[in-house]
Amino acid sequence: MTLPETLGTLGESQVLARIFPRLPAAARELLGPGDDAAVLSVPDGRVVITTDMMIHGPDFRLAWSTPHDLGWKAAASNLADVAAMGAVPTALVVALAAPADTEVAFLEAFADGLRDGCAALAPDCGVVGGDLSVSATLTIAVTAFGDLEGRAPVTRSGARPGDIVAVSGVLGAAAFGLELLFASTADASTADASTADREPDATAAAALKLEHPAAVAAQLAPHPPIADGKAAALAGATAMLDLSDGLAIDSRRLALASGVALDLSAAAVAQGFPFDAPHDARLCLDGGEDHSLLATFPAGTNLPGGFRAIGSVVDLADDGDGILVDGTPYLARSGWDPYAGWDGVAG
Amino acid sequence: MTLPETLGTLGESQVLARIFPRLPAAARELLGPGDDAAVLSVPDGRVVITTDMMIHGPDFRLAWSTPHDLGWKAAASNLADVAAMGAVPTALVVALAAPADTEVAFLEAFADGLRDGCAALAPDCGVVGGDLSVSATLTIAVTAFGDLEGRAPVTRSGARPGDIVAVSGVLGAAAFGLELLFASTADASTADASTADREPDATAAAALKLEHPAAVAAQLAPHPPIADGKAAALAGATAMLDLSDGLAIDSRRLALASGVALDLSAAAVAQGFPFDAPHDARLCLDGGEDHSLLATFPAGTNLPGGFRAIGSVVDLADDGDGILVDGTPYLARSGWDPYAGWDGVAG
Repeated sequence: MTLPETLGTLGESQVLARIFPRLPAAARELLGPGDDAAVLSVPDGRVVITTDMMIHGPDFRLAWSTPHDLGWKAAASNLADVAAMGAVPTALVVALAAPADTEVAFLEAFADGLRDGCAALAPDCGVVGGDLSVSATLTIAVTAFGDLEGRAPVTRSGARPGDIVAVSGVLGAAAFGLELLFASTADASTADASTADREPDATAAAALKLEHPAAVAAQLAPHPPIADGKAAALAGATAMLDLSDGLAIDSRRLALASGVALDLSAAAVAQGFPFDAPHDARLCLDGGEDHSLLATFPAGTNLPGGFRAIGSVVDLADDGDGILVDGTPYLARSGWDPYAGWDGVAG
Repeated sequence: MTLPETLGTLGESQVLARIFPRLPAAARELLGPGDDAAVLSVPDGRVVITTDMMIHGPDFRLAWSTPHDLGWKAAASNLADVAAMGAVPTALVVALAAPADTEVAFLEAFADGLRDGCAALAPDCGVVGGDLSVSATLTIAVTAFGDLEGRAPVTRSGARPGDIVAVSGVLGAAAFGLELLFASTADASTADASTADREPDATAAAALKLEHPAAVAAQLAPHPPIADGKAAALAGATAMLDLSDGLAIDSRRLALASGVALDLSAAAVAQGFPFDAPHDARLCLDGGEDHSLLATFPAGTNLPGGFRAIGSVVDLADDGDGILVDGTPYLARSGWDPYAGWDGVAG
C-alpha cells in the first residue's frame, strides 16, 4: 500500500509545485508565484486592499466544510470586501498553515476551490502569490486586491437622510444553513455545552447537505453578488459595505460612520430570505456571513443589478444607535456571533 | 484588583480601537483601517506584493520573543522580500490570530514593534489594514507592498556568467542567535527530544539576551538592509533575493532560476559573520533568517550601499546543482531548517 502524501512528508517546495498549476491566473499579473514577491498591474494608480483570516474552530469546522468549500469561501468573503468598495477584484494572495499530516490532496482541493470561486464570482481575478506553513491550527489568510477603474471608493460614511437603503444578495441564508448544521449535531440543544460537547458530526452534516443543499451551501460556499459592487458605484451609491456580521450590526456600522440612521422595512428585509423557516425575520436581521452588499443610493436612483430597496436613511436621533425597523429602534441584538460563548471574537 | 484586559473580554472592535492609534501611517495611504478595504496610492501603475505567515512553534517561541520582537520581525522579514525585488516598501496589512486570553498589552506591544520596525527600516511604510481573530495557535500573517518607481523588478532569474555575486547585511548572525537560544534550553542537546522536551526556557533566554544581546537580537529582531534593495536595482543588479533560508539554499535557488552556478569564496562569505564563533563558515552558509540581500551585478559594477563581493557567477555544470565554494560543489546541506524534525516545513 502507498502512504498518502502529506505536507510534512513532501515539504513546502514540492507541495507548492503541485498546487501552483491549479491556481487561477490573474489577468493583471505581471510576475506571479516563485519569486520573493509578485508584481500586479494597477493602471488606475490606486489599489484596493483587504485581508481576512479563517481559523479552524471559530470560523469553520472540517467536519462540515470540504477543502473545496474552504477555498471557495476564502475567495468569496474577500472578494465581497473588495466589491463593497465599488471595485473590481483583480488578485488574491493566499497563506495557508496546516498540520504536517495534512494530505496534499486536501491542499489541491483547497486550490481548486479558490480557482472555482474566482471563476464563478470574479473571472479576471487570480492568485498571484502565497505562503505555506505548518501549524497545529488550520489557518487561512487571504489578502485581496481590487481596481477602482478611475472611480472614487464607496466608503461607509457617505449615506445621507433621504437616501434609499438597498441590498443585493440573500439575507439570513448563511445563518439558516449554520443553524441546520448546529442542529444536526446531537447535543447542539445544550446551550451551555462546552467546546468538546459541541464537536460537529460529519455524518449528520453529509445527510443535511442532501436534505438542504442550498441552505448548507449558503453557509459553506456562499455566492456574494461581486459584480454588483461596481454596478452600485456606477449608479451613484453614497455608502456601501459587505454584510459579514449580519444586517443589523452592519447597518448600524454604516449608519454611525455616516452620522445617520437606517430605517428598515421588516417586510422588505424578510423578502431577502430564500427559504421557508418560521423565524426568517430574525435570521435576516441578525444572521451573518451572507456577504451580500448593503448600499445607500440617492432618492430616485434606478437601482442597479440585483439591488432591491429595504428601507431609507433618516436623521440619527439624539439617543439613537443607528438602526430602526418599521420606525422603531431595533435593540434586539448588537450583532451576530454564534460562537460568542466559544471564542469571544467571531472575527 | 483589576483583571487584565484580554482579546476575549474586550472583543475585536475595542481591541482594534486600542491598536490602530499605535500603528504607523503609510505615506501612500489614501484610505486606512476602518472600512471594508484600504486604498493605497500606486503612482507607478504596478504594485509589488508578498505575503508570509509566522506561526508559534515553527517560527517563533513566546519564551524567547517579546511581542515587540514579533511585530518588528513580522515587519522586517516582509520588508526584505519587497526590497529583494528592487522596490521601496510602501505599506503592510497585518492579520493576527491569538488565544482569547491574550492580554491587550501584548497586542499593543506587537503594534509598537510593527511601528518601530517600519520607522527604522522603511520610514514611509505603514500599516493600512488588518484583521484580528481568535485561535489556539498565535499566528501572524503579513502582506507587504512596494513601489518599483518606474524600474523593472529584479527577479531571481537574471544572473549571467561573469557577474559578481554580492551580499548586503550579516550572514549567519540570526542562526548563531538561535543556536545560543536552543543551547540555553537545558535539554536542547537531546537530538531526538520530543516537542514537550524542547520547551524553551524563558529565564535562560532572558539571561542570554544580556550576555549576547547582538546575536539574540539578530534572531529575534533582525535589521535587514531594506534601502539596499533599491540601491541594487539602481546599480544594475541582474538578480536578487532575500536570504531567508540561508546563503547555500538561497544561492542555489537564484542560480537554478537563472540557469547558472554561483561560486562563492569561503573567506569572503565568513567575513559576513559579525561575531566570534568556531563554526562561523558553516553558520554563514547554512544559517537562515538573516534577511540580508543576495544580488548579482555585471562585472565591473561599483557595488552600492552595503554590498560586498562574495563570489562570481559561472556556467552551470551538467551535473551541477548551482552552488560551489572555492570552486568545489557545496553539497553539505540542501538547506537550513532547525525545526525540520519538529514540523517538517520551516516556511
